[in-house]
Amino acid sequence: MSFLSHLECSRCHQTHDADRLQNLCTCGGPLLVRYDLKAVARAVRPANLAGRVSSLWRYRELLPLRDDKNLITLGEGMTPLFPLPRLGASVGLPDLWLKDEGLNPTASFKARGAATGVSRAKELGVTALAMPTNGNAGGAWASYGARAGISVTLVMPTDAPAMSVLEATAVGAHAYMVRGQITDAGAIVGRSAKAHGWFEAATLKEPYRIEGKKTMGYEIAEQLGWSLPDVILYPTGGGVGIIGIYKALLEMRELGWLPDSVRFPKLVAVQAEGCQPIVKAFREGKDVSEKWENASTVAQGIRVPKALGDFLVLQAVRETGGTCVAVSDADTLWGLEQISRQEGAFICPEGAALVGAARQLLREGWLDAGQRVLLLNTGAGIKYPDVMSPKLPILELNATL
Amino acid sequence: MSFLSHLECSRCHQTHDADRLQNLCTCGGPLLVRYDLKAVARAVRPANLAGRVSSLWRYRELLPLRDDKNLITLGEGMTPLFPLPRLGASVGLPDLWLKDEGLNPTASFKARGAATGVSRAKELGVTALAMPTNGNAGGAWASYGARAGISVTLVMPTDAPAMSVLEATAVGAHAYMVRGQITDAGAIVGRSAKAHGWFEAATLKEPYRIEGKKTMGYEIAEQLGWSLPDVILYPTGGGVGIIGIYKALLEMRELGWLPDSVRFPKLVAVQAEGCQPIVKAFREGKDVSEKWENASTVAQGIRVPKALGDFLVLQAVRETGGTCVAVSDADTLWGLEQISRQEGAFICPEGAALVGAARQLLREGWLDAGQRVLLLNTGAGIKYPDVMSPKLPILELNATL
Repeated sequence: MSFLSHLECSRCHQTHDADRLQNLCTCGGPLLVRYDLKAVARAVRPANLAGRVSSLWRYRELLPLRDDKNLITLGEGMTPLFPLPRLGASVGLPDLWLKDEGLNPTASFKARGAATGVSRAKELGVTALAMPTNGNAGGAWASYGARAGISVTLVMPTDAPAMSVLEATAVGAHAYMVRGQITDAGAIVGRSAKAHGWFEAATLKEPYRIEGKKTMGYEIAEQLGWSLPDVILYPTGGGVGIIGIYKALLEMRELGWLPDSVRFPKLVAVQAEGCQPIVKAFREGKDVSEKWENASTVAQGIRVPKALGDFLVLQAVRETGGTCVAVSDADTLWGLEQISRQEGAFICPEGAALVGAARQLLREGWLDAGQRVLLLNTGAGIKYPDVMSPKLPILELNATL
Repeated sequence: MSFLSHLECSRCHQTHDADRLQNLCTCGGPLLVRYDLKAVARAVRPANLAGRVSSLWRYRELLPLRDDKNLITLGEGMTPLFPLPRLGASVGLPDLWLKDEGLNPTASFKARGAATGVSRAKELGVTALAMPTNGNAGGAWASYGARAGISVTLVMPTDAPAMSVLEATAVGAHAYMVRGQITDAGAIVGRSAKAHGWFEAATLKEPYRIEGKKTMGYEIAEQLGWSLPDVILYPTGGGVGIIGIYKALLEMRELGWLPDSVRFPKLVAVQAEGCQPIVKAFREGKDVSEKWENASTVAQGIRVPKALGDFLVLQAVRETGGTCVAVSDADTLWGLEQISRQEGAFICPEGAALVGAARQLLREGWLDAGQRVLLLNTGAGIKYPDVMSPKLPILELNATL
């Protein structure tokens, strides 16, 4: 069962009823889900998790769903976490690890937020929802929406990855394009949702996707035997993952699930040189970012000119002693080649940016070789076939190589 | 630790040394891996598995690797198993389930065989291997080979799926094409492997991929609380999965891991109308299949005109009281649309053929509505983007839907 208590505004801290459908706080701030953590601590200990389902629903008490009959799952979460010995040795970080979110339904971490967001939307009576997307979120919400019997409308930039368009339409979403950025798509969704009474499920405009994403933090701790890495590098677009991981860290500390000797990892927000509003705000000591003009990067998933939760990302980074770093497209593609060829892990460009970021931070002396560094890859490489276009030699039937 | 004992020919039952590199038996039969199951039964009980790693390596004692230092993993196995209530209701099978192998590294079940096959090849000193492939196996073996530092050479038909070509080349495999079938590619690989001293890792020509695939059987039992479905439908090309699942059933029975009251599921080999050598052999009461001429189907992964392990597939089907069934491409595409739109599970055409097969077997009275039927989907839908080509409407910036 869930120990869901209420919703709290991340900005003005006003509380809201969790059992009514909510978008943002009256002050415009995103809402965070709160639980009765004292009761959870009495009900569950880490050792109780061992025999549970191999998905994010193993953390059932810390997820917002009241009734299992509304639980919409395609098997999301409990993604692999493994060392990268050859890549680590080559970049000078011998204790380098990967958590591979490409092994989720719809091949990206967006499945986590969609699972909790759609389940809870169903529970609260939603029959139609709409959202803007750069691709992966649309594919995920469309898929979970289909399974829930909820109508899903998507608006995405015309250069959204073809694979996400494919999966969204395969599962029957109503999908549209716009010549612009995700912010332009968001404006169309906002107007249309109001006109038709659709639930607006844009990033952080509903409270429950963070709850799915936070389970990445729980899993990292559980998979490392309730220890934590020294540093987590995270590709940051909307930033929900980093916000969620930090939320999980705070909850685990309060639950007493982390030994006192365990220090929080430094959280690092990695952006692309061609779209780095949060990096800029971090360097300038600001609490919020400004919209990045003419955003452009090969890592389309982190092409978010202005994130609603930017202040929460900056907070998570600063409070953990982390940093923000921008990576060039050339370094991202270099990172993709290195991790693919050395480790056999064909990841998405967003994840590959982390390889470039790790090298950069090591060179600058921000990272040191003794640290355990975790790269959080957000999706599978095959979702971005346009990054490469291989041509193979054709052999004769009687050929010998 | 592994309780690996020896290798046994599946045809003439001659035993072979497991600690030497082996291909086929001297009689031409594929080799099966044998364990000291009595010792395993003393060392492990199902309850001991609960806290173990969420991958196929949780069945460590029943896998062939001697030393963990040779273990090559990308997090394969422990894929989701969940009910399909809406699809089940619509086709008349209310207790219909899916095991979704698309949530593996390289987005297909081939990762299982590649993980155990490459790990064991590394352990036995292989530095270069070669294989023919219709796509998914090539992507998987290329990826695990890259992580192991083993050189991988692939030959595939010119119409192999672009996504598999992409992933194989991304991880640095030496990949070639041939205008022909996988059997033609296999002939080139055979000659070339001999010429260069490469290890030939074609389906069933090495003994260890079955061991990875068999873990699907262990997982099904564990995930259903050590019960089993009444029927398992499996898309059959080379047939290693069905052979592996049957091997797991026999092992689990001998281990005492299945209560005596639990009956084996009927195993159903599903092929495409355009390539159904095993269905034909089954109907004609034969023990082996004949090469299917002019093989053609939208489900490319099961386009195998003649499988080396055909007799083992037929044995598994007959000994469990199962059957063999061929599905038209039209029914496969119908199945893909149904499972995608009703359940949000965008699976591969091979898996979608199972939906058509289930409907067909129910109509024929072979299945009945009270049975628990499991569809074993072998890969993700996004690996086959050519199956659909969506075109989305483009909206103006000031649009409202």
